[in-house]
Amino acid sequence: MALVAQDLLFPADPASRSVARDLYAGIKDLPIVSPHGHTDPSWYAENKPFPDPAQLLIVPDHYIFRMLFSQGVTLEELGVPTLDGAPVETDGRRIWRRFAENYHLFRGTPTRLWLDYTFANLFDLSDPLTVDNADNYYDAIAAQLATEAFRPRALFERFNIEVISTTDSALDELKWHAMIRDSGWSGRVLPAYRPDAVIDPDFEGFRENVDRLGAVSGCDTGRWQGYLDAHRNRRDYFKSFGATATDHGVLSAQTANLAAGEAEVLFDRVRHGTADASERALFRAQMLTEMAKMSADDGLVMQIHPGSWRNHSPAVFRKFGRDKGFDIPTQTDYVGSLKPLLDAVGTDPRVSIILFTLDETSYARELAPLAGVYPALKLGPAWWFHDSPEGMRRFREMTTETAGFYNTVGFNDDTRAFPSIPARHDVARRVDCAFLGRLVAEHRLREEEAHELAHELTYGLVKRAYNL
Amino acid sequence: MALVAQDLLFPADPASRSVARDLYAGIKDLPIVSPHGHTDPSWYAENKPFPDPAQLLIVPDHYIFRMLFSQGVTLEELGVPTLDGAPVETDGRRIWRRFAENYHLFRGTPTRLWLDYTFANLFDLSDPLTVDNADNYYDAIAAQLATEAFRPRALFERFNIEVISTTDSALDELKWHAMIRDSGWSGRVLPAYRPDAVIDPDFEGFRENVDRLGAVSGCDTGRWQGYLDAHRNRRDYFKSFGATATDHGVLSAQTANLAAGEAEVLFDRVRHGTADASERALFRAQMLTEMAKMSADDGLVMQIHPGSWRNHSPAVFRKFGRDKGFDIPTQTDYVGSLKPLLDAVGTDPRVSIILFTLDETSYARELAPLAGVYPALKLGPAWWFHDSPEGMRRFREMTTETAGFYNTVGFNDDTRAFPSIPARHDVARRVDCAFLGRLVAEHRLREEEAHELAHELTYGLVKRAYNL
Amino acid sequence: MALVAQDLLFPADPASRSVARDLYAGIKDLPIVSPHGHTDPSWYAENKPFPDPAQLLIVPDHYIFRMLFSQGVTLEELGVPTLDGAPVETDGRRIWRRFAENYHLFRGTPTRLWLDYTFANLFDLSDPLTVDNADNYYDAIAAQLATEAFRPRALFERFNIEVISTTDSALDELKWHAMIRDSGWSGRVLPAYRPDAVIDPDFEGFRENVDRLGAVSGCDTGRWQGYLDAHRNRRDYFKSFGATATDHGVLSAQTANLAAGEAEVLFDRVRHGTADASERALFRAQMLTEMAKMSADDGLVMQIHPGSWRNHSPAVFRKFGRDKGFDIPTQTDYVGSLKPLLDAVGTDPRVSIILFTLDETSYARELAPLAGVYPALKLGPAWWFHDSPEGMRRFREMTTETAGFYNTVGFNDDTRAFPSIPARHDVARRVDCAFLGRLVAEHRLREEEAHELAHELTYGLVKRAYNL
Repeated sequence: MALVAQDLLFPADPASRSVARDLYAGIKDLPIVSPHGHTDPSWYAENKPFPDPAQLLIVPDHYIFRMLFSQGVTLEELGVPTLDGAPVETDGRRIWRRFAENYHLFRGTPTRLWLDYTFANLFDLSDPLTVDNADNYYDAIAAQLATEAFRPRALFERFNIEVISTTDSALDELKWHAMIRDSGWSGRVLPAYRPDAVIDPDFEGFRENVDRLGAVSGCDTGRWQGYLDAHRNRRDYFKSFGATATDHGVLSAQTANLAAGEAEVLFDRVRHGTADASERALFRAQMLTEMAKMSADDGLVMQIHPGSWRNHSPAVFRKFGRDKGFDIPTQTDYVGSLKPLLDAVGTDPRVSIILFTLDETSYARELAPLAGVYPALKLGPAWWFHDSPEGMRRFREMTTETAGFYNTVGFNDDTRAFPSIPARHDVARRVDCAFLGRLVAEHRLREEEAHELAHELTYGLVKRAYNL
Repeated sequence: MALVAQDLLFPADPASRSVARDLYAGIKDLPIVSPHGHTDPSWYAENKPFPDPAQLLIVPDHYIFRMLFSQGVTLEELGVPTLDGAPVETDGRRIWRRFAENYHLFRGTPTRLWLDYTFANLFDLSDPLTVDNADNYYDAIAAQLATEAFRPRALFERFNIEVISTTDSALDELKWHAMIRDSGWSGRVLPAYRPDAVIDPDFEGFRENVDRLGAVSGCDTGRWQGYLDAHRNRRDYFKSFGATATDHGVLSAQTANLAAGEAEVLFDRVRHGTADASERALFRAQMLTEMAKMSADDGLVMQIHPGSWRNHSPAVFRKFGRDKGFDIPTQTDYVGSLKPLLDAVGTDPRVSIILFTLDETSYARELAPLAGVYPALKLGPAWWFHDSPEGMRRFREMTTETAGFYNTVGFNDDTRAFPSIPARHDVARRVDCAFLGRLVAEHRLREEEAHELAHELTYGLVKRAYNL
Repeated sequence: MALVAQDLLFPADPASRSVARDLYAGIKDLPIVSPHGHTDPSWYAENKPFPDPAQLLIVPDHYIFRMLFSQGVTLEELGVPTLDGAPVETDGRRIWRRFAENYHLFRGTPTRLWLDYTFANLFDLSDPLTVDNADNYYDAIAAQLATEAFRPRALFERFNIEVISTTDSALDELKWHAMIRDSGWSGRVLPAYRPDAVIDPDFEGFRENVDRLGAVSGCDTGRWQGYLDAHRNRRDYFKSFGATATDHGVLSAQTANLAAGEAEVLFDRVRHGTADASERALFRAQMLTEMAKMSADDGLVMQIHPGSWRNHSPAVFRKFGRDKGFDIPTQTDYVGSLKPLLDAVGTDPRVSIILFTLDETSYARELAPLAGVYPALKLGPAWWFHDSPEGMRRFREMTTETAGFYNTVGFNDDTRAFPSIPARHDVARRVDCAFLGRLVAEHRLREEEAHELAHELTYGLVKRAYNL
């Protein structure tokens, strides 16, 4: 059997397990609210069939190909496209077999749980995947993907998704979102404002991007005030499509709050490409604070995702480009780094900032103490490498006692892998029920409180935190 | 029911729980030894009734008001006094209601456990606190506080406190301690020497404080040797009131051990206000080592509490002052920082230094290895944000295997909240019994050893470590 | 009874315990593969009886004497030799009694488990050690050590050691290994190449060491290319004795990859003693990368053990020398530090580098993400202070979800304490079975997979990772 037991992820001791099971029964069928992810809005707009099993499940999933790569499988064998068009494997069945013969590598990982769940619940394949049944798997999945019931909109409805947010460049015209809106389909797909390309002077094409920002906004992005106005304009444009949040991927959580004149001078240097590395970092730091101030005005919730050293291997980056599994967490400071921003808006009741981390040492030491006192701060869920049973358990164990449950915001699936969305939410729900079950069994929480909290962690908090 | 089950905090599996329960039965009624805390000695000296429930339990407790503030309740609504006297809520009942309607925010926090324990065991209120019974709670607590049985000395005796230490400025004349001593009351209330105000050049009024230190000690604090003599004089004065320990709150654990001439020059610069930031930090570092050397001579146990970024929000600090929940932990180094001090006295059998941390990453990496070899070092218990069930469990899991149990020093309640003292000790006792119960159930410790250890962790170690 | 229960270290809940017990039954009798340790090859070569119980078990074991020292027992009382020959206790029985009367200090530590296992299983002493039976213990152990059955080779066979690696200076002529090879004894004892003395300019006698390296290799170590050739020569020499690995103890994981000309200039400065501290650090960094490049050519597996501040107490170092329990872990960076090396060989399929840490914060944040993508990297087991039940559990919990099981390499006992080898492997096997048992009980792994994994973690992975 695939790993889809009724008691999956519940504590082994009968007392905790029994409570966890009851809690889960009360929330497992709640709709999915997905406020942060990377699914492609064109899927919902065009509603075309998904491609073959390998192209859907293996080739775009960096969790999968990074593990295989670490054990000697080349990215070419897995069909990952090269930047220069050098040939890679294109036969989905061969890619699938290569994956199947290495499926044991995922033992003990969340990827394994997501895949087993998806195989069993979405594709009705509950024998464990092996080399021997790889072709059967491939054929069964391919056949189902060709049917109407497996088109994106049908799956969206089947997955019971109440609302999903995509992540979109500040320069995006949001044509797919417009197409979805105009289609009459009832699915709620919202954009989120991700301005890295026009905020980070080290982003590829930054200066051209800022030019384009001027063009799409009708503001003079050659000047600091015009540049800020352009952001305001685009944020409003995103809001008009239902956006409720912005998203900021940054190497560090460093913020700054310069006097207006200083910021202007800094912008001019950045704009003309004469800023040095520390000035470029300072500009990024300043822009986090500017975005927070705009949030005070327009109410968009701000998400900060710091701490990933992107594209760690230059060889892989040159050959295959971004997002190839070589984004590695680094040590991340929050207490000092966020201070300028917090001094500006940390106690402003109009501001809501959700903090994420890849550095778990900050949970108990920095993030929970900060979120447990600043009204503007909340804690995002366990993220990326920590979106896993042990990672989510540690998140609760290390944040709850200082920040409580109510300074957290439910779950983010943060995924490009559309078919895995129900699996990811299911794992999160189970881990939260397991944690609550233990608290009840240890008499640290009354059972009726745990039921309320299970509902909040699954549904209530995310709706309120993201204004959804 | 409030969270006061017989098996509170014991592991859910029956084997571990059964051992934990037996261990706890053996130590739960041991007297409380409280070697480090912040209760007000005037309470025991004057023995006046405590004020209304809100003024006793809510207004002074930064654990409580920081959580409420983080969720949008203002400090004014909670009656926290402003520095400039701007009006705040003074109606205790209204403050209490505001607290009661937000009591769910504390689910999963130690504050909740302490309060439920206190409500049930001290005030005989065991229905869970809600908006609906908030007034009943208020009235019942207020009525009891007005009785003789709830005066400070009566509670001290009811709580079975064998000895408690307050924390007192080096400049304090200890008049309340004198009044207690002269009153004939048998309660043992000791001072502890806290010289931050005369050691830290960045402390408000540092230079005047050092003048006053000269006046109260009769030493010439205009000179380095006189200044050191003044400390020796005050330490002796504190010892004459039964003090057995000193306490040092510092941003970092940095120490130094300058040649006498260098220290003298540094003192002169600090004394005349001409030291720059790095010299002021060096002076703090030097003074930790000086205090350790004095401990070698006079036998006072030295406590070092590093790593808190005090008053992180300038807006709150300006309006409400210190200790308003905005003290945030930071990353803390010990291995390099303590080296000068350890080179000086680390293997001196006369010296005993108790180290605390707000940075749990140092437990297994630095503190346990240091305390597991240096005779002068011992580990203070899980502190502040980590004085919680999960925090105390992590402390044991991450220190015991390298430092053992015998390089730890029992529990510190570290509290201003007098009524919560029994609750805090009870939680610590339960968590230790739970940890020991697991070790026995996993056959890592014999049951009779666990009984001995439970007694040591509750009573023996603290008595010996603090010479009480 | 000593702590040798059948269910030692298995989870207390019956479901997990039952699986753990079954898994353990399947692997407990597998041979010991010990790819990294510090036993003395002369033992196996000469096969003389071991000395008295104290000289065998107490005097050389820094885990033991550091704990006793931390509680006020002097190293002299424990018979630890002084560098200047100042007298120390030489009566083994007195040393043993001192140890026995303090045996309670080891409660909760792995040392206690290793010793109880060794007493019971090797010496048939299963009453707990106390002051009262200390002499009986001493006599019984001494009597057995005098017999043929307790000679090194007999124990090697009794311990079911399939292969063991020692750790040997690059300058070592490997005469004991030659003697073992030529003796006709079937025991497999391999050397490992440890070049710290000729790579670290701060090592005592570095320049003379490099001279000797020239002499033993016949290469001109006065020149950069000759120096590199000398390493190649010695690595080949070690390989001719069966070595499959190199080992590198470094303060930091810093690496560099200089252009050839720059490296040559740097070498000249280091060679002539004119390099400053940062140049000496750069040389160490460069040499890690050079060693990795040589591994690509000759196939020796590279082990990197960073992060220990050696000889932290200068007083103890001056009196007693190295390895006296004063090696303290420090914070360790990998993501930035290893980048130059990884840029050079991180995706080279011929390279295999095993990373260790004393800084557990790097497990989930850095090491698992790095090993989970770079083909050249694998994770060494929980090391030194973390070679303990809780330490090994945290290792699995913090690495498995990102790196999987297959990017780990089984267990290293890393010990000088020959009699403790079976105990250490037994603890590791039990902790792994406990972890796997929990995964099965929580339905995160199928039971047959857990059996396969238990075999891999005990035997398969170490054999493959070290090419044994």
